[in-house]
Amino acid sequence: MEEGPVAGTRYTLAELARLTGADLEGPGDALITGVAALETAGSSDVSFLANRRYRHQLADTHAAAVILSRGETGSGYDFTVLRADNPYLVFARMGWLLNPGPSPQPGIDPDASVSALADIDASATIAPRAVIEAGARVGPRCWIGPGAVVAAGVHMGTACRIDANASVLAGSQLGDRVEIMSGAVIGSAGFGFADAGDHWEAVPQLGRVLIGDDVSVGANTTVDRGSQGDTRISNGCKIDNLVQIAHNVQIGDHTVIAANAGISGSTRIGRYCRIAGGVGFAGHIDIADGSTFTGMSMITGSIHESGVYSSGVPLMPTREWRRSAVRFRQLDDMARRLDTLERIMTTTEDGDGR
Amino acid sequence: MEEGPVAGTRYTLAELARLTGADLEGPGDALITGVAALETAGSSDVSFLANRRYRHQLADTHAAAVILSRGETGSGYDFTVLRADNPYLVFARMGWLLNPGPSPQPGIDPDASVSALADIDASATIAPRAVIEAGARVGPRCWIGPGAVVAAGVHMGTACRIDANASVLAGSQLGDRVEIMSGAVIGSAGFGFADAGDHWEAVPQLGRVLIGDDVSVGANTTVDRGSQGDTRISNGCKIDNLVQIAHNVQIGDHTVIAANAGISGSTRIGRYCRIAGGVGFAGHIDIADGSTFTGMSMITGSIHESGVYSSGVPLMPTREWRRSAVRFRQLDDMARRLDTLERIMTTTEDGDGR
Amino acid sequence: MEEGPVAGTRYTLAELARLTGADLEGPGDALITGVAALETAGSSDVSFLANRRYRHQLADTHAAAVILSRGETGSGYDFTVLRADNPYLVFARMGWLLNPGPSPQPGIDPDASVSALADIDASATIAPRAVIEAGARVGPRCWIGPGAVVAAGVHMGTACRIDANASVLAGSQLGDRVEIMSGAVIGSAGFGFADAGDHWEAVPQLGRVLIGDDVSVGANTTVDRGSQGDTRISNGCKIDNLVQIAHNVQIGDHTVIAANAGISGSTRIGRYCRIAGGVGFAGHIDIADGSTFTGMSMITGSIHESGVYSSGVPLMPTREWRRSAVRFRQLDDMARRLDTLERIMTTTEDGDGR
Repeated sequence: MEEGPVAGTRYTLAELARLTGADLEGPGDALITGVAALETAGSSDVSFLANRRYRHQLADTHAAAVILSRGETGSGYDFTVLRADNPYLVFARMGWLLNPGPSPQPGIDPDASVSALADIDASATIAPRAVIEAGARVGPRCWIGPGAVVAAGVHMGTACRIDANASVLAGSQLGDRVEIMSGAVIGSAGFGFADAGDHWEAVPQLGRVLIGDDVSVGANTTVDRGSQGDTRISNGCKIDNLVQIAHNVQIGDHTVIAANAGISGSTRIGRYCRIAGGVGFAGHIDIADGSTFTGMSMITGSIHESGVYSSGVPLMPTREWRRSAVRFRQLDDMARRLDTLERIMTTTEDGDGR
Repeated sequence: MEEGPVAGTRYTLAELARLTGADLEGPGDALITGVAALETAGSSDVSFLANRRYRHQLADTHAAAVILSRGETGSGYDFTVLRADNPYLVFARMGWLLNPGPSPQPGIDPDASVSALADIDASATIAPRAVIEAGARVGPRCWIGPGAVVAAGVHMGTACRIDANASVLAGSQLGDRVEIMSGAVIGSAGFGFADAGDHWEAVPQLGRVLIGDDVSVGANTTVDRGSQGDTRISNGCKIDNLVQIAHNVQIGDHTVIAANAGISGSTRIGRYCRIAGGVGFAGHIDIADGSTFTGMSMITGSIHESGVYSSGVPLMPTREWRRSAVRFRQLDDMARRLDTLERIMTTTEDGDGR
Repeated sequence: MEEGPVAGTRYTLAELARLTGADLEGPGDALITGVAALETAGSSDVSFLANRRYRHQLADTHAAAVILSRGETGSGYDFTVLRADNPYLVFARMGWLLNPGPSPQPGIDPDASVSALADIDASATIAPRAVIEAGARVGPRCWIGPGAVVAAGVHMGTACRIDANASVLAGSQLGDRVEIMSGAVIGSAGFGFADAGDHWEAVPQLGRVLIGDDVSVGANTTVDRGSQGDTRISNGCKIDNLVQIAHNVQIGDHTVIAANAGISGSTRIGRYCRIAGGVGFAGHIDIADGSTFTGMSMITGSIHESGVYSSGVPLMPTREWRRSAVRFRQLDDMARRLDTLERIMTTTEDGDGR
């Protein structure tokens, strides 16, 4: 009921151009039913070119129209040109117009388990096997998927989606239009243990998770609640699958984090950062607004200046890699020997009277 | 009901040898009830030796029989020898003969939530709390575990297993004998956002996940659906736990991927690749058939030739590591100074008339 | 029902000091209602100083009392001093006294699905949508959360918590006071496949997962069951979110493992180890008791001596990093050229008669 295209959603090219602010360079009466990549687009599809790497595909595409940037100078194409400052963005918006998705039927499925003390807006949809505990508040047009758990005291705003088997726990607070994807866990206890000599004792995790508006949290991602303060994910953040966000982490507006990344406790990430897959952050550090980290970077200290950062070593055939890896162990020794040689050389040259 | 050995499954050694194609070198009438490692095997167990590292355990094992390779020359053992080209494979097959597992009772548990518009084969088993949405198709002898979600439009073939609390979403298509382990998410929305200047806008993710036959997907692994095209996992692939497979990724037949690995969007992995744990692939790259990557490798570009590849640096005591790590930052400088020294040395030697 | 503070839990400072063994240096009649960080504490909170980095916050805190170590010499504070050997531990214990959490109502929710052949202690709580299969045993004061699955033959002791949507499978055995957090999977099939030439064949995974007392397993972490033997997590281990523990792994008492780490099959980790986030272990290796590994370390061989170990390279601006990364490929060549230069230099110096 929830997924799949809705039959009959179609627009003329002219309508699409008008609704998305693209400039139509040619006839606008073609009926468009979908969006597609250049390679696979058919005669009723719109496509786009955002990456000049794929420019050669323009000659062969069967798309009815292609969204091109203002700087794209080619001509004589078989398709109609839609001109835009940001072709990919216009493409995305046309995609939503043509694929609005099904409108879930409001109401609580009889197979859901909803506490009488939960506050569910009449326009919300609660799928079978969802669990909503006492004191939870589910806003207008929210969708709570099958098997999802919304625990006691969780509040969410308008038009949130909690996907299948996701768990939103411990009084977490969600803004509007937040999506928590399948299997994600929001509000689990942070990893805090005090060293008691011969064993560890859990430190109570008393904070919450606060999530702003327009945040997306990927499948099987985990966000721990704060220990004393709160864990905070600000407006517009997009977080991919299998990301770990530890207790007390603060993430600024519109930061994006790709899959398999991990952020240790109490670290603060700025606004508009871009964090690639597999990146790891130490705890208790601060990351400047607008910082970018390439894949699998290891960040052990604060970053005070915006910029692009990397770590790691490049891939090599294993046989060659073994040799470099052994030498890495000797690097400090090599550096000292180099110093020595330079000193000797200078002395030698001096000694030679040059 | 689902797990644990079934009492009374036993074979004679001769029967086991015949059923798996092993050659029996000795008496075949011993009654065998299980398989076990050399160290722990008892007098009614079969064991195996695949790794010569464990050869010394042959002297002490209490196994009734041990599967040895044709090249294994030892003799005078207390156990009966089963000879095979591939001892581990024969061991696995004997393991299944002796541990067939329970046969789940076909039928839909009254505590399951199954849409009247789902197509469930009469020989399939639907466990309590499973959710099957409208338009889903569940083939013969499939098993849908407790809490598993099979969303609208998902099709699966024969003898698939969807384990506890797994989510199969968004019209995903599964072949025959596919196992999706607990907590795995198949068909979540890909991580696609267009840069709208001061915020990100989601790009509709319109594709599906297509999974071939005999594929295994590990616990809490995530496989995103395609954006325009489909994400594809081909026949015989084995994927471990906590792996991320992004939208539009294509994985060729019989490739194996160990835990914590991540494959970024639109990357194409060939057939018969072996990808160790924690490996990360950049997006939009191609990996040749038969490529092997050691643990935690970082792959940022296409691999055109099959081979064994690695990256990373070796473990060191932290105090020593700090020194090497600092020098890594100076590597380019060191290389230039080395060049200079060599040039000077050549000049010096020339100047000396040698 | 499950989360959130219970109104009315309060102690005098003197009571808290007595119950936790702290020494009160000042008046003890203040009524305390909570614990908080120095920065955010109010006039009815207790706070603590464990890290001298935050010492400057002592001057400004509004806490009623602060727990200080015996070596902390400052005086003249606005707050009452509580003196302790281990301020963080005392803080944790006061935190639990002041925030005992709700006491769940014993009993089986009518929306749970519990086999008539499961053995559930009368003091246990089974939440809505939980599934308990035949032969499972749930001990006194256990709490099984919404959507959690406790499969056939699973046994757990006293006061365990299985959080929302977690899956405990395949006859796993849990001691007392074990917490399995949301979405975690215990007892999934290990990743064992035999190479059958042109395809892979699954090796039956016949072992179990054995978990000791006082173990915590984080959200969406996966622990595979043994292949022939068992996977074992010993008493007092604390495991964070999104950790992979493969089949046959053995982890000694009181070892802690942070998020995104992965331990490959049959590896044995000692007691009292500390494993930071993102660390990866190869399979079939042994790690000495008391070993510490810093974040994202790659461990490819056994560690025979306790110590602190690291790997990886430091973060750099990407432009500089590219230069170092290229040179890493040339490291062996650089080392050989350095050798040559040293040899020549020695010869030259000798040739010069020095």
